[in-house]
Amino acid sequence: MCGILGVFGSPEAARMAALGMFAEQHRGQESCGMAVSDGRVIRLRKKMGLVKEVFSDEALAELPGSLAIGHVRYPTKGSATAWNSQPHLLETLSGPGFALASNGDLVNYSSVRAKLEAQNVYFNSDNDGELLLRYIALQMQEGHEIIDAIRSLMREIKGAYSSVFATRDELYMFRDPLSIRPMTWGKTASGVVVVASESCALDTLDVQERQEVPAAGIIRVNSKGITIIENDPDLYRNIGSDRHCIFEHIYFSRPDSHHFGEDVFAVRQKIGALLAADDAGLDPDCIVPVPDSSNFIGLGYAARMGVPLSLGLIRNHYIGRTFIKPEQTIRDESVRQKFNVLPHFFEGKKIVLIDDSIVRGTTIRKIVKLIKAAGASEIHLRIGSPQVFHPCYYGIDTPSTAELVANRYPLEEIRSRTEVDSLKHISMADLRNAVQNPESYCYACFNGDYPLPPKTGSEA
Amino acid sequence: MCGILGVFGSPEAARMAALGMFAEQHRGQESCGMAVSDGRVIRLRKKMGLVKEVFSDEALAELPGSLAIGHVRYPTKGSATAWNSQPHLLETLSGPGFALASNGDLVNYSSVRAKLEAQNVYFNSDNDGELLLRYIALQMQEGHEIIDAIRSLMREIKGAYSSVFATRDELYMFRDPLSIRPMTWGKTASGVVVVASESCALDTLDVQERQEVPAAGIIRVNSKGITIIENDPDLYRNIGSDRHCIFEHIYFSRPDSHHFGEDVFAVRQKIGALLAADDAGLDPDCIVPVPDSSNFIGLGYAARMGVPLSLGLIRNHYIGRTFIKPEQTIRDESVRQKFNVLPHFFEGKKIVLIDDSIVRGTTIRKIVKLIKAAGASEIHLRIGSPQVFHPCYYGIDTPSTAELVANRYPLEEIRSRTEVDSLKHISMADLRNAVQNPESYCYACFNGDYPLPPKTGSEA
Amino acid sequence: MCGILGVFGSPEAARMAALGMFAEQHRGQESCGMAVSDGRVIRLRKKMGLVKEVFSDEALAELPGSLAIGHVRYPTKGSATAWNSQPHLLETLSGPGFALASNGDLVNYSSVRAKLEAQNVYFNSDNDGELLLRYIALQMQEGHEIIDAIRSLMREIKGAYSSVFATRDELYMFRDPLSIRPMTWGKTASGVVVVASESCALDTLDVQERQEVPAAGIIRVNSKGITIIENDPDLYRNIGSDRHCIFEHIYFSRPDSHHFGEDVFAVRQKIGALLAADDAGLDPDCIVPVPDSSNFIGLGYAARMGVPLSLGLIRNHYIGRTFIKPEQTIRDESVRQKFNVLPHFFEGKKIVLIDDSIVRGTTIRKIVKLIKAAGASEIHLRIGSPQVFHPCYYGIDTPSTAELVANRYPLEEIRSRTEVDSLKHISMADLRNAVQNPESYCYACFNGDYPLPPKTGSEA
Amino acid sequence: MCGILGVFGSPEAARMAALGMFAEQHRGQESCGMAVSDGRVIRLRKKMGLVKEVFSDEALAELPGSLAIGHVRYPTKGSATAWNSQPHLLETLSGPGFALASNGDLVNYSSVRAKLEAQNVYFNSDNDGELLLRYIALQMQEGHEIIDAIRSLMREIKGAYSSVFATRDELYMFRDPLSIRPMTWGKTASGVVVVASESCALDTLDVQERQEVPAAGIIRVNSKGITIIENDPDLYRNIGSDRHCIFEHIYFSRPDSHHFGEDVFAVRQKIGALLAADDAGLDPDCIVPVPDSSNFIGLGYAARMGVPLSLGLIRNHYIGRTFIKPEQTIRDESVRQKFNVLPHFFEGKKIVLIDDSIVRGTTIRKIVKLIKAAGASEIHLRIGSPQVFHPCYYGIDTPSTAELVANRYPLEEIRSRTEVDSLKHISMADLRNAVQNPESYCYACFNGDYPLPPKTGSEA
Repeated sequence: MCGILGVFGSPEAARMAALGMFAEQHRGQESCGMAVSDGRVIRLRKKMGLVKEVFSDEALAELPGSLAIGHVRYPTKGSATAWNSQPHLLETLSGPGFALASNGDLVNYSSVRAKLEAQNVYFNSDNDGELLLRYIALQMQEGHEIIDAIRSLMREIKGAYSSVFATRDELYMFRDPLSIRPMTWGKTASGVVVVASESCALDTLDVQERQEVPAAGIIRVNSKGITIIENDPDLYRNIGSDRHCIFEHIYFSRPDSHHFGEDVFAVRQKIGALLAADDAGLDPDCIVPVPDSSNFIGLGYAARMGVPLSLGLIRNHYIGRTFIKPEQTIRDESVRQKFNVLPHFFEGKKIVLIDDSIVRGTTIRKIVKLIKAAGASEIHLRIGSPQVFHPCYYGIDTPSTAELVANRYPLEEIRSRTEVDSLKHISMADLRNAVQNPESYCYACFNGDYPLPPKTGSEA
Repeated sequence: MCGILGVFGSPEAARMAALGMFAEQHRGQESCGMAVSDGRVIRLRKKMGLVKEVFSDEALAELPGSLAIGHVRYPTKGSATAWNSQPHLLETLSGPGFALASNGDLVNYSSVRAKLEAQNVYFNSDNDGELLLRYIALQMQEGHEIIDAIRSLMREIKGAYSSVFATRDELYMFRDPLSIRPMTWGKTASGVVVVASESCALDTLDVQERQEVPAAGIIRVNSKGITIIENDPDLYRNIGSDRHCIFEHIYFSRPDSHHFGEDVFAVRQKIGALLAADDAGLDPDCIVPVPDSSNFIGLGYAARMGVPLSLGLIRNHYIGRTFIKPEQTIRDESVRQKFNVLPHFFEGKKIVLIDDSIVRGTTIRKIVKLIKAAGASEIHLRIGSPQVFHPCYYGIDTPSTAELVANRYPLEEIRSRTEVDSLKHISMADLRNAVQNPESYCYACFNGDYPLPPKTGSEA
Repeated sequence: MCGILGVFGSPEAARMAALGMFAEQHRGQESCGMAVSDGRVIRLRKKMGLVKEVFSDEALAELPGSLAIGHVRYPTKGSATAWNSQPHLLETLSGPGFALASNGDLVNYSSVRAKLEAQNVYFNSDNDGELLLRYIALQMQEGHEIIDAIRSLMREIKGAYSSVFATRDELYMFRDPLSIRPMTWGKTASGVVVVASESCALDTLDVQERQEVPAAGIIRVNSKGITIIENDPDLYRNIGSDRHCIFEHIYFSRPDSHHFGEDVFAVRQKIGALLAADDAGLDPDCIVPVPDSSNFIGLGYAARMGVPLSLGLIRNHYIGRTFIKPEQTIRDESVRQKFNVLPHFFEGKKIVLIDDSIVRGTTIRKIVKLIKAAGASEIHLRIGSPQVFHPCYYGIDTPSTAELVANRYPLEEIRSRTEVDSLKHISMADLRNAVQNPESYCYACFNGDYPLPPKTGSEA
Repeated sequence: MCGILGVFGSPEAARMAALGMFAEQHRGQESCGMAVSDGRVIRLRKKMGLVKEVFSDEALAELPGSLAIGHVRYPTKGSATAWNSQPHLLETLSGPGFALASNGDLVNYSSVRAKLEAQNVYFNSDNDGELLLRYIALQMQEGHEIIDAIRSLMREIKGAYSSVFATRDELYMFRDPLSIRPMTWGKTASGVVVVASESCALDTLDVQERQEVPAAGIIRVNSKGITIIENDPDLYRNIGSDRHCIFEHIYFSRPDSHHFGEDVFAVRQKIGALLAADDAGLDPDCIVPVPDSSNFIGLGYAARMGVPLSLGLIRNHYIGRTFIKPEQTIRDESVRQKFNVLPHFFEGKKIVLIDDSIVRGTTIRKIVKLIKAAGASEIHLRIGSPQVFHPCYYGIDTPSTAELVANRYPLEEIRSRTEVDSLKHISMADLRNAVQNPESYCYACFNGDYPLPPKTGSEA
């Protein structure tokens, strides 16, 4: 998971981009970067670290220009180097060049890369974004216009990509034909164009009018204005419709974002309500969500159940991935670094505990232990997603099939190992009911119905 | 505001201290430090930065020993240097020495320092903790036992101090006679003694038995065991009773802490309930707290009002004090870096907005604007504390009397300037009702009734 | 002044380049950089600092490949940023790109840059090397071969340039038609091709066979072998002959280098001998050179005079440009940071003091004072170059005309202000006698006879 | 080997100390430190790195005061940490404290440390200087005056120590009874007192009057003036006379220093002359010293021989201990990083090569190879010291007995392995003739006659 951002038309483009990236920090904390053009030169800065660390006022002052693209990157194993950070920048023979940043995973990365390398196009990184950039550049080298280069890319490269591409005086936004990852753009009152992975970043920048970048859509912004390129009919005929990632609604996106035609928080509240509808007669003392990701599922559940929500678990927001490695000295230490219980709150209570998903199943077991140790008499666990049986190939960092707890034990054994009194997941049917256009989503991690063939063999 | 921590009796003292300090990170993010004794040498590490940055596994590995004291420091202007960080360490002529960390402000710092300097005791910093340490050291130099030195300190130095003091093989905890700041200690199942500003740090370390350090109390922990020193009768006769800081309950402490004989979250919920009791007939569409500090006041209000709580404001937890300085390009930008509204949520709604306090009044005005721009039809602002008319001299970082909005405008004008439809603070009487022992608190910031004379002249 | 280096054909190209650059460190201590190709990707590292700081074993390990070019940069005012450091790297649309490093100053930089910018070729720096690189790239963009592109460059760009240019699998060396700066190349026993500004770098790498790159020469090295390109007859007809910088012999080059057909140390010794020939009857007690630059002039003078050389001045080799700024507390402090006198050595002695040149005249005055304070009875100052009346436009960092002491005072007044008993410069005639082919040198700083028109107007 | 420095009575004490330490940089490049008192607080800064890196203008600005002591530390294995750097600082119970820096090695470090630890005096480092500081502090703790404490130290602690000790308003200098390491002090024209390991540091600071600190001498400097304490008669009776380290003259000290009653350069020239006296009839073409340490031995040899000195070997002064580790790719690479030969100089020549000493014998073998490869027909190696058979326990970093080449092979075999035509060391008798008071020196590394018993058993 990652987040992208683009700004066109502001003398403070770098500053606006940094503020927008800061609003998308939840999508990636490992590294971040920005490429800014002053119309003559595109300057690049990318480093390991948070937006507020990498883009100090001093750093921003060295990035003049009115066009900026930015990226925040999620920590993934093995590739935590500045080379794999985005954006990527390509200088050209005749002057300054092109930059690109993208969110999403490509399915046929290896075969396309091999094809390019056979044409002597070589690479500085293993990063998807660089493949997109060099693909476009090669097309241009061969004489194609940028728009045609991107269309060609859409025909040949399979996967999820919400991308921003900058020349020294133009900003392009484009998105894969399935529009798997979110991507929204708009204009400020003063005419600055901003595009972001999530609309919460547009809020930060006071962008008023806004709309999503269409599937297989290309939007060009330059000094003459904004051009929304018509979809390639051939391309579209083969595709059919959107396949948005349903996990963006369940867990990944910020609740104050709006995309795929939905308010994220509202989908979550509806999931909660549908879970509660199935629990008539349970009569809990209180409803406790795992903060912060499950808060809105909890609110929806509590409202439907008619029992007030409780914030019985407290989360330490200063946690980071680099902190002290847990050892066995202190019981359940790793979960205690992140979560704590209210004092005296759980004693003798019958709890409905709400979480968004179960992947490996380890964290929720520790949370349950914490609550039990705090005196809860009964714990009923409700999960805002169906069981996860299949890995994601389009940008969510899931473990291998064998590590998914749903593939390791029957549901009842998962319940007993988690030591809860009952365990229910939302059904696929109810999850589809929680959104307005259920056909426009990808549910592959639950049902294995992949809209694009998963990586196989050397691609995996 | 700051936080302290002490550990005695664990081979992993430094690691435990770091975990505890991490749980107290909300009490201070500017710098942190730790002094660890291996029985022969006390080693000190203190730096600007968060606990997770300063105390990496590598840093902890260089701090062997079974006795540790730690400190997190709040950002205050003008003194942001490593010299002013805590703990302070004093080596001695005959070997390694003493270390001390303290939370709270001293009222007669300047006069005591002048007296010590007249005896050729000089200082490396302007920090209160160093005064306490050098005062004790001078007493010892003059032949007094440590306990007598601390008693002498309690008679002469006025103010708030929750302190930990380490020799190379003993840990002392002591607290001012008014016990203004919180301080709780306990033992783990394996006998490790831990003391912290807040009990949430003890939770992280799985400390089971626990109690507060008594007013004017001294507790000594060494290899022979734990000694709780009787209060000095003369000292106590002049003092009478506790004067805990009521603001710890309202705003500063973590909701999952317990101190001053109360569960913090429960006091907040009661405040909310008492506010709601006064709003019968208001009939709002929703209750929205300013996150995260007002969440429990909001929960209390909502429960009493019978209207579900809404989490309509979203807070960006990656914010830090060092991020981009706001400029005027983007409307209300500084508040937008920190807060956002749910999409479509506020449209046409009648809102009760809950905040813990109004100090300068600037942030709440911007939040109200944000909510109004999101379409709210009515906003009724409820505040979980009485109006703040007086500065704090005991450790809360309040602005000068002239900057407090309560002294600048009549309440009705504050309401109209904040552009809310109604504005109510909890009354002093209700606030006292929200706690079990109202007489044991300091309310000086509301009513000017200072339990110790405020700093005057050169002390100010 | 700067130094360049190139290596082709070694699996340890980066390491060899670093060793070579280290031998050229005297040509530039401000920053250094290296671009290394593994046949697919050219990786660049350049930073402020010395070679041994920038190119640690760890840094070299991240620069795989068998082709490397490197650069050391001299500290000049106002441009001390990494952007102006060399080499410059240009990625290309269709894969990895080109890198270039150059030594020397261009005379018509501004007009060529303006012409390129008119063709939309923009720049990241103000550095000469980037102009050369982008010029070549534009020619290639327009369809020309690399050799033709460089020939075109030689016709259009005026000035001094000893340059190395790398594609991902070829190394090119080329040099301006006047061959103003030195440039020597050769092969190791195992066939590795190395090119350097100075032959002392080739010694470090045990390069046996060697020759100078010819004026207006281009040498291409690739997997097929070494191709020495014939000079462009048109280009050569207009030029006539070499104009090597005589100052390389007098002061700038290392004494253990050989170029312009001469052993540098031997030229210096001859200068010394010619100075001594003019001092018959002076009968000094000792000959003291200003170390280390004048040591060989001193040896030549001493041998001819028949008086042993003395090393009466000691130089502190730990000095760097960044050390403590002198203040007035300590007399002659700035010179004392760098030089000291032997104890009791100068007392009552008649000294011949040897220096290579007088530019501003400030340092030599302080050295003379130091020696006088040490008790010298007479000081006769001998200078290994004629008076400097004119600035250099081809790469030596001289001050403006007005700052040159030769333009400020008559020679006798310079002598009296320097407080020496006599002052003699070598004559132009003798300087020409000190070299084998006097016509092949540029003496413009002495006689104003510029082989290329100096910068005027906006070029200055 | 290390160097110390002290300044008393200048508002720019820190700056003067840094300049002095910079002049002593050759005595230690690993780390450096300074403690500066403003009369109330002693502030300490010590770090790994060169003086010019550690003591920037900014760093000096944070060290106000008129009393400073400083130290440069030589790189030794295993202890390269900031904890072992000097000066050491001890704060005291009643205010700011004491600081000490020392040059030299202690022989009975372990037994004295054990004795102190038995009295509960514990240590932060393994460094000799800390032992001296804590010893003095313990004496003071027990009621002794500083002078008496230092006298007690001199009776109990055996070894070499040239030390500076600072209270907040006094500077003490003291030196071991054998005065093994150099130590000279003096006053500037304005009355500032400066003490240094070497007089070249006093030159830098324009200190005019100067004298050596006497054996077992103590000098106290405070606002009342300078007090030279009489030697303790008991202490002196047992000692007899000085045992200065002869290696300071041969190799370690700067040639422009004066100590042990001698000009260092003059001793070296005399050594050279005595070597030459033994070579009558050799008739070499040229005399080449290994730069820079053997330059003056070379000058003395050349003058006596009547053959001009040649500087045929060039040393790269940018070399540092951290540079690239040699590999086997390039022949004799490690020596080539440091040394090079003049081009064409050695061809067919009969050379006298001069070096100061042979310890392991590895470097000189590589230098000889380099010169042979350059064409020398004969090489006669002359060494300015007798053969080194014994390790030093007083501060020179020599290898173990087994590693000394003199213990591994007969002299003739060393000659043949070094591949020189002849090899001569100066004789012990001639070395004694080279100095004025031969009885006042330690020659233990040559003849095993240790003035103090060497470390044995656990001390070794």
